[in-house]
Amino acid sequence: MKFYAYFNGRILPAKDVRIGISDLGLLRSYAVFDYMRTYNGIPFYADAHLTRFFNSASELHLSIPCSKKRIKKIIGNLLAKGKCHEAGIRLMLTGGYANDSMTLNHPNFIILTEKLPHYPDEIYKNGVKLITYEYQRVLPLVKSTNYLTAIRLKSLLNRKNAYEVLYCYKGEILEVSRNNFFMVKRGVIVTPSENVLHGITRKIILDLASGKFKVRERKIKLSELNLADEAFICGTSKRIVPVVKIDTNRIGTGRPGPITREIMNMFSKLTLKYTGEANRKK
Amino acid sequence: MKFYAYFNGRILPAKDVRIGISDLGLLRSYAVFDYMRTYNGIPFYADAHLTRFFNSASELHLSIPCSKKRIKKIIGNLLAKGKCHEAGIRLMLTGGYANDSMTLNHPNFIILTEKLPHYPDEIYKNGVKLITYEYQRVLPLVKSTNYLTAIRLKSLLNRKNAYEVLYCYKGEILEVSRNNFFMVKRGVIVTPSENVLHGITRKIILDLASGKFKVRERKIKLSELNLADEAFICGTSKRIVPVVKIDTNRIGTGRPGPITREIMNMFSKLTLKYTGEANRKK
Repeated sequence: MKFYAYFNGRILPAKDVRIGISDLGLLRSYAVFDYMRTYNGIPFYADAHLTRFFNSASELHLSIPCSKKRIKKIIGNLLAKGKCHEAGIRLMLTGGYANDSMTLNHPNFIILTEKLPHYPDEIYKNGVKLITYEYQRVLPLVKSTNYLTAIRLKSLLNRKNAYEVLYCYKGEILEVSRNNFFMVKRGVIVTPSENVLHGITRKIILDLASGKFKVRERKIKLSELNLADEAFICGTSKRIVPVVKIDTNRIGTGRPGPITREIMNMFSKLTLKYTGEANRKK
Repeated sequence: MKFYAYFNGRILPAKDVRIGISDLGLLRSYAVFDYMRTYNGIPFYADAHLTRFFNSASELHLSIPCSKKRIKKIIGNLLAKGKCHEAGIRLMLTGGYANDSMTLNHPNFIILTEKLPHYPDEIYKNGVKLITYEYQRVLPLVKSTNYLTAIRLKSLLNRKNAYEVLYCYKGEILEVSRNNFFMVKRGVIVTPSENVLHGITRKIILDLASGKFKVRERKIKLSELNLADEAFICGTSKRIVPVVKIDTNRIGTGRPGPITREIMNMFSKLTLKYTGEANRKK
């Protein structure tokens, strides 16, 4: 298994991609990205990821130089060339090379295939601790590369023995640094509606759960955390991770809750079903 | 005149510096920089810039792999090798290459010499218009590469026929996207004290002006703009630019004010004096 990349029209080993120093993604953090993964070799919800990627680019006044169809074709080629059974797929678009370090130019467009991260079983079995932090991402609906705060807070996480940081702003719960947040309160599944990234896994969970449970997208006050019976975070690579503690507050019984476990099961089944269907279509 | 760069121990033409795609400056906007310029070939206030650069790095838990003395030596070598009479000098330090796209590694350290930007005479003679925008930079005392908002607002500046955006937050005036802000009110020169970058030019102006005028570093309310007699912005490459309009409000007479012009003169004299002295010391 080898990881290949696409860089402005060229295919090359991902580790060999090098970008010029005058790129605005590097000099000025002017870049958007998206990240999807395969299940059984098939990019999972590729259309949803691409739609979001195109929206992010548009919010930054950047044009993606390929159609969605063409991007899917390139991803297929990269996976085939590298004989990747499973992979992460990172799409990046930057403001391009600027002579004056500020003016947008032809964007640099990169598609990387990557090794999938591995997360330890314990986090799924025992749940994790979050700590709250007062922060709202810039342009929350845009998947920009601005993760300065997330990385800077890693030493705080270590000190507090916590797994992730839960961003809150003006008394409202928003999202985790790279994931969406859900809580369960009296049998109702709730997730913040505004000023958060519209995660693809978040959307899948809302769709899956609405067949069986009450679901609500709404503002969540920080003070509601005390009343939560269950909580979990979700994202493309971590999937669904139960949350059992936030700051010093135990959530529910301090163990992953039954609704969380049910949603984890439903999601697992979906990944099998989806890749099964996709394979049959091939 | 040719522009050379230092990249992790190597000297090469600046245009040939390329960084691997897994760099955290690129993937996650985790990078700090500083920018100084020469006058008559001598880096202006190099020690002040380096002190700030080291502080920025420290705030991001990054270590700069060279001493200040060594960096000054490298800068001297780059300028000499490129026969640069005048140049901009950009120092950059990123979170390094990360296999997992999140974990800090040995920083990548780059020193670039660059062509100095040229600004039209009119902005100094006639002054410029600013527009206010509700925003506070993340870690305002750190010179990080996070300029997403600044670049994204360029189209708004064009539409509003404005030169720069003046960040305001919760009713207070902060700074311009790449410059500090000053106003003159009843003969007193005032600049925001908190939540702004501590600009080197800002400090020089405070020192210069305090010999002749009353100067104050304090919070400035947005509502005070109506009472300003003069205003200006300042920075390393733009130096001092008079401000004659903010949003729809004319500042003072709508022409660069006498105290602003006086400070522009004092600053020009300092650059001549400083480089003269530095040359004599050589």
